[in-house]
Amino acid sequence: MIEGKIDVDWDTLFAERTQQMKRSTVREILKLTARPEVISFAGGLPAPELFPVERIRQATDTVLAERGREVLQYSTSEGMPELRGLIAKRLSAGKFQIHPDNVLITSGSQQAVDMIARILLDEGDRVIVENPTYVGMMTSWRPFDLHFSPVPTDHDGMIVGELDGILAERHKIMYAIPTFQNPQGVTLSRERRVRLAQILAEHNLPLVEDDPYGELRYSGEAVPSVLQIEAESRGFSSVEGNVMYCGTFSKVLTPGLRIGWVVAASPVIDKLVQVKQATDLHTSTFNQFVSYEVARDEAFLDQHIATLRQVYRERRDLMLKTMDEHFPEEVIWTRPEGGLFLMVTMPPRLNAREILKEALAADVAFVPCDDFFVGDAGHNMFRLNYSNARPEMIVEGIKRLGAVLKAAVRE
Amino acid sequence: MIEGKIDVDWDTLFAERTQQMKRSTVREILKLTARPEVISFAGGLPAPELFPVERIRQATDTVLAERGREVLQYSTSEGMPELRGLIAKRLSAGKFQIHPDNVLITSGSQQAVDMIARILLDEGDRVIVENPTYVGMMTSWRPFDLHFSPVPTDHDGMIVGELDGILAERHKIMYAIPTFQNPQGVTLSRERRVRLAQILAEHNLPLVEDDPYGELRYSGEAVPSVLQIEAESRGFSSVEGNVMYCGTFSKVLTPGLRIGWVVAASPVIDKLVQVKQATDLHTSTFNQFVSYEVARDEAFLDQHIATLRQVYRERRDLMLKTMDEHFPEEVIWTRPEGGLFLMVTMPPRLNAREILKEALAADVAFVPCDDFFVGDAGHNMFRLNYSNARPEMIVEGIKRLGAVLKAAVRE
Repeated sequence: MIEGKIDVDWDTLFAERTQQMKRSTVREILKLTARPEVISFAGGLPAPELFPVERIRQATDTVLAERGREVLQYSTSEGMPELRGLIAKRLSAGKFQIHPDNVLITSGSQQAVDMIARILLDEGDRVIVENPTYVGMMTSWRPFDLHFSPVPTDHDGMIVGELDGILAERHKIMYAIPTFQNPQGVTLSRERRVRLAQILAEHNLPLVEDDPYGELRYSGEAVPSVLQIEAESRGFSSVEGNVMYCGTFSKVLTPGLRIGWVVAASPVIDKLVQVKQATDLHTSTFNQFVSYEVARDEAFLDQHIATLRQVYRERRDLMLKTMDEHFPEEVIWTRPEGGLFLMVTMPPRLNAREILKEALAADVAFVPCDDFFVGDAGHNMFRLNYSNARPEMIVEGIKRLGAVLKAAVRE
Repeated sequence: MIEGKIDVDWDTLFAERTQQMKRSTVREILKLTARPEVISFAGGLPAPELFPVERIRQATDTVLAERGREVLQYSTSEGMPELRGLIAKRLSAGKFQIHPDNVLITSGSQQAVDMIARILLDEGDRVIVENPTYVGMMTSWRPFDLHFSPVPTDHDGMIVGELDGILAERHKIMYAIPTFQNPQGVTLSRERRVRLAQILAEHNLPLVEDDPYGELRYSGEAVPSVLQIEAESRGFSSVEGNVMYCGTFSKVLTPGLRIGWVVAASPVIDKLVQVKQATDLHTSTFNQFVSYEVARDEAFLDQHIATLRQVYRERRDLMLKTMDEHFPEEVIWTRPEGGLFLMVTMPPRLNAREILKEALAADVAFVPCDDFFVGDAGHNMFRLNYSNARPEMIVEGIKRLGAVLKAAVRE
């Protein structure tokens, strides 16, 4: 920020809720890692060398040539009908058929999560979250002055059995990333999903199912979304339950176009459309057309996702193998079946923010996990991303980090 | 919205603030005008036949060929540095030099207006607005449960002399469209801008200067923005005053890319960046690069704006001439020097929503103005857009509307 005389005492004018806001630690760390010599496992960035640049170039040419005036004009807050239809079709399964009207297009799934808060949360509401949980959700929701009730997690995701005790008190909403969770990479088991769907119904509790990584499975058996499991277990043939499902093209096509979506019951979509109007009128017409033009070739899209899975699987395996070889035995970590992240736990006497300073001195970066936790936990944990760095960088970066960790545990 | 059994009683769950939300009347009316036979003066749409489609196609090719991996990746919340620099340069004048760090890129200027509310407004705050004012601002701000204090307007815009009385009570913020205001098309005079800048300083009152139409002047003498007049009159050499200036490419390039911006003092930008992170992480990287690639050729941009001015001037003149010929003498209207809109006032016994029904029966549409007013005024007023319809449609539509109005005043 530039220096200079400022005329107004802005701090006295900012809204009370903004006092609780702070810049995202993750994004601030990403700035520190901008030096080209740093090997960064910090971001949640897809591998840019896999972006379907030529497909997107063809799509921009096509939509501009065929419907140039339409794709550059204002459009509806709900989103492009064909794109809503495509997403509805891809998420429908068997008897559970999603109507395009139950899909709202958003500017990335972050906006979906942010808008859901705007329609549902009153000051002081109680909200159930996995612990740890996605820090970007907390950044968005914290200004509502909420009480976050944390649910502990294990290798099968949120420990759903803990919910009964928590739900003795009234809660407004639950937020979860059931599949390849950020930051741990763990996945909620099918059995727990079925039980969770029952609990949602029993308690009239809405769930925000944030699912940016669901299509990126590298091993193990696929588990349907909670949206789908709720529909199956309760016999829904349309979207009429408690789940508000947030998805995105950011991880399977490209994040730079900012195309996400919410699938939810009609009253929720109706209210979200009002907020969408107030927020930014609508998501970029052009980007919706381009994304649709690429994704409507589902054979291409599925093949592209298969390629991503193959490359990310290799990177995950390489990172895990190199960690096995170079990390000290006092350090443990998750072994995700998909997604972009794994989480490392050091001995409690070590602090991830301190270790990060030493790591940056060795030109390697990660994200400390304390901001992902409700409460004081997580100081000795950090998150590693394995999708963005090339294989040789993964090996070199993990070796550097291993040396830093070995020195730290020896002290 | 689809019908169907809904499992959850959502109405009991929605946040209190959403009770005050309603769908935008303008956007709902736009749906009614979707029939191809309707000549619509309702929207605020630019003329799509003037979109620089080929330039944008070239720009997409260039940025994808040269920096494909970068333009499709995540990027910073602040926005693309080169684009911020270009906007800063174009808005700087003489001694008043805007630093790129004082520019934040947003997803259209609607998002800028919405985010400013999020950082500044507490429940129950008093806010000063022109009367009438932009309905999209009210849609966004109304959930904060504000008290809107209306300032009357005349052919020179907001009657600034009325502010002293209003400011006897503490107000948090002022919102205004000083240039070619929506819905009236009137422009705040230079003398009033100088006085307004003084009042802002005296009362430590921030102003949201919403300026989507400023570059679209067709006649009369250009007036600098309040941002610039404040800087000139108070001797600022950088952005350090009370004005938060919102601009957009929507009216001078294309709305479909959703590129807007805020220019403001550093503490405001700093806080807005935090909200931007929480809201949607960042504005589409791709659209920022494409917009920059088109706009950095300033000779092209200025020539394109000159073309828009020429075409819109002709359409404005044609609409005014046809109104002079075909509207009954009991009806009066504004004669804007620029922008997209003029406002019509009928005799008080006529109601614009009733007249709209008759107009739609004659396949012509406009927007009633009651929603643009604070309080009960405006029932006999409506807004006409002259940028979107082709000349022959303007003549035909105004003739039809003239017939409807003549019948109505005769009743």
